[in-house]
Amino acid sequence: MQILDGKKTSIDIQEELSQKVRQITNSGKKAPHLAAILVGEDGPSKTYVNAKVKACQRVGFKSTLIQLNSNVSEKELLNQVDLLNKNKDIDGFIVQLPLPKHIDENKIILAVNPEKDVDGFHPENVGKMTLGLPTFLPATPNGIIELLKRYNIPTSGKNTVVVGRSNIVGTPISILMSRKNYPGNSTVTLAHSRTENLKEICSNADILIVAIGISEFISEDMIKQDAVIIDVGIHRVKDSSKKNGFKLLGDVKYKEVAHKSSYITPVPGGVGPMTIASLLMNTYIACYGRDK
Amino acid sequence: MQILDGKKTSIDIQEELSQKVRQITNSGKKAPHLAAILVGEDGPSKTYVNAKVKACQRVGFKSTLIQLNSNVSEKELLNQVDLLNKNKDIDGFIVQLPLPKHIDENKIILAVNPEKDVDGFHPENVGKMTLGLPTFLPATPNGIIELLKRYNIPTSGKNTVVVGRSNIVGTPISILMSRKNYPGNSTVTLAHSRTENLKEICSNADILIVAIGISEFISEDMIKQDAVIIDVGIHRVKDSSKKNGFKLLGDVKYKEVAHKSSYITPVPGGVGPMTIASLLMNTYIACYGRDK
Repeated sequence: MQILDGKKTSIDIQEELSQKVRQITNSGKKAPHLAAILVGEDGPSKTYVNAKVKACQRVGFKSTLIQLNSNVSEKELLNQVDLLNKNKDIDGFIVQLPLPKHIDENKIILAVNPEKDVDGFHPENVGKMTLGLPTFLPATPNGIIELLKRYNIPTSGKNTVVVGRSNIVGTPISILMSRKNYPGNSTVTLAHSRTENLKEICSNADILIVAIGISEFISEDMIKQDAVIIDVGIHRVKDSSKKNGFKLLGDVKYKEVAHKSSYITPVPGGVGPMTIASLLMNTYIACYGRDK
Repeated sequence: MQILDGKKTSIDIQEELSQKVRQITNSGKKAPHLAAILVGEDGPSKTYVNAKVKACQRVGFKSTLIQLNSNVSEKELLNQVDLLNKNKDIDGFIVQLPLPKHIDENKIILAVNPEKDVDGFHPENVGKMTLGLPTFLPATPNGIIELLKRYNIPTSGKNTVVVGRSNIVGTPISILMSRKNYPGNSTVTLAHSRTENLKEICSNADILIVAIGISEFISEDMIKQDAVIIDVGIHRVKDSSKKNGFKLLGDVKYKEVAHKSSYITPVPGGVGPMTIASLLMNTYIACYGRDK
């Protein structure tokens, strides 16, 4: 069993980006510039956005954080999006989700210029992904793809099972794993809450990607010997033995599943840290293009 | 075994549309107006476009056919697309593919206003489909969904296997069959040329959708007893016993597979005729909106 170390891989990617940006800016070109809009005072959203801004600083990107009151109107938020669309110094930006209920998230996502949509949430970018065209891939699927690539995991002709069909993880990663590419070329099964024979399907998977959002949902008897296990879940569970009073669990029973797998992502330190690396990779591409 | 009669279903849909349009136009509103751009003299393309124009006339839609020389420049074609985007009387339009090699198809597809893209080829519409948002679905997947619906085929929790991952059939129908909807909610496996254990996978399918583009590829031993078989293939094969000198075959060995299936689409007369019904349904929606 080998650990797919997302933490280390994310740091590696950030160091690579940092070096490349230093070279480019030394030659007189601008640094990539990411902006983030944060609406309201939601704790986790603040934490995520701050982590993104800090990561930008670490790799030598410029970053701009725009904080808006939770009672901002949809129209005002659309105005902000429009300003960022038009601001030539800003290469990419994100609107941290979720948004307050009085704002239509889809309307905001559609208002973002697809060329600056480094979250890959705009339907035009999702469509390009589905069609196999170059685009900004959403952070979590992009992170999984990058992790598989950097550990040289064979994927062609393999049975890949994705558990969970969310718009931001399950559905896109199922599409990416089936397209004509590496990583990809897998025979992909997308399973979800309505799937009737889940245990049988999972135990047939050479690569099992779990994004069902249920703590420790996958047990040892559900996986194939030597399967590759990608655990997207992250759940805070009370644990009085820990200093901060809680522990983090994934969608997979790590302890019993790990020894049966060939590769596995831990929680924390697996898929999670890769999402920030993805966002930075997208911002780099938004600034300099795809081939540099 | 029951035949999924695409020819009859397509006629039913056209009659329904025809009646609705007559009522609406009698009340003084405009009829839906579809335009089609045909570039060059490709025989099959001409036949398809003419069939679409005729179908419009049959159901009381207006239609405009724009024929361009095969040596039309990309810029001129983009101008034509722009004119149709701006023409307020035209509700939807299609650019018949394939285009001559000197024209970048993706560039043309991206130039079509997504709100008039009744072929459902624009990435924004493909993305909306992937995200489960209302959109114009591409003709063939839309036709399959409509056929399953009108025959009340149960799909929730079923194992659906799609063979072939093309952008216009295999990939979109695999997405549609997995989304939270009816038809949908299936556990979907997308198989393709790199799939290693295809026979085993197909023989596990409650619903088998074949769009691999190889004549009579699926044989009796590859399907489950009482499976639902959707055959998207259409191949012209020489046959001196026929008046016109050829016969049409699908991707499925119809004669041996049919008796083992619960429902099956014939070739011709199955999925094929449904594509025109899909285009008309999309054009209707482009004109009057989704809820009328």
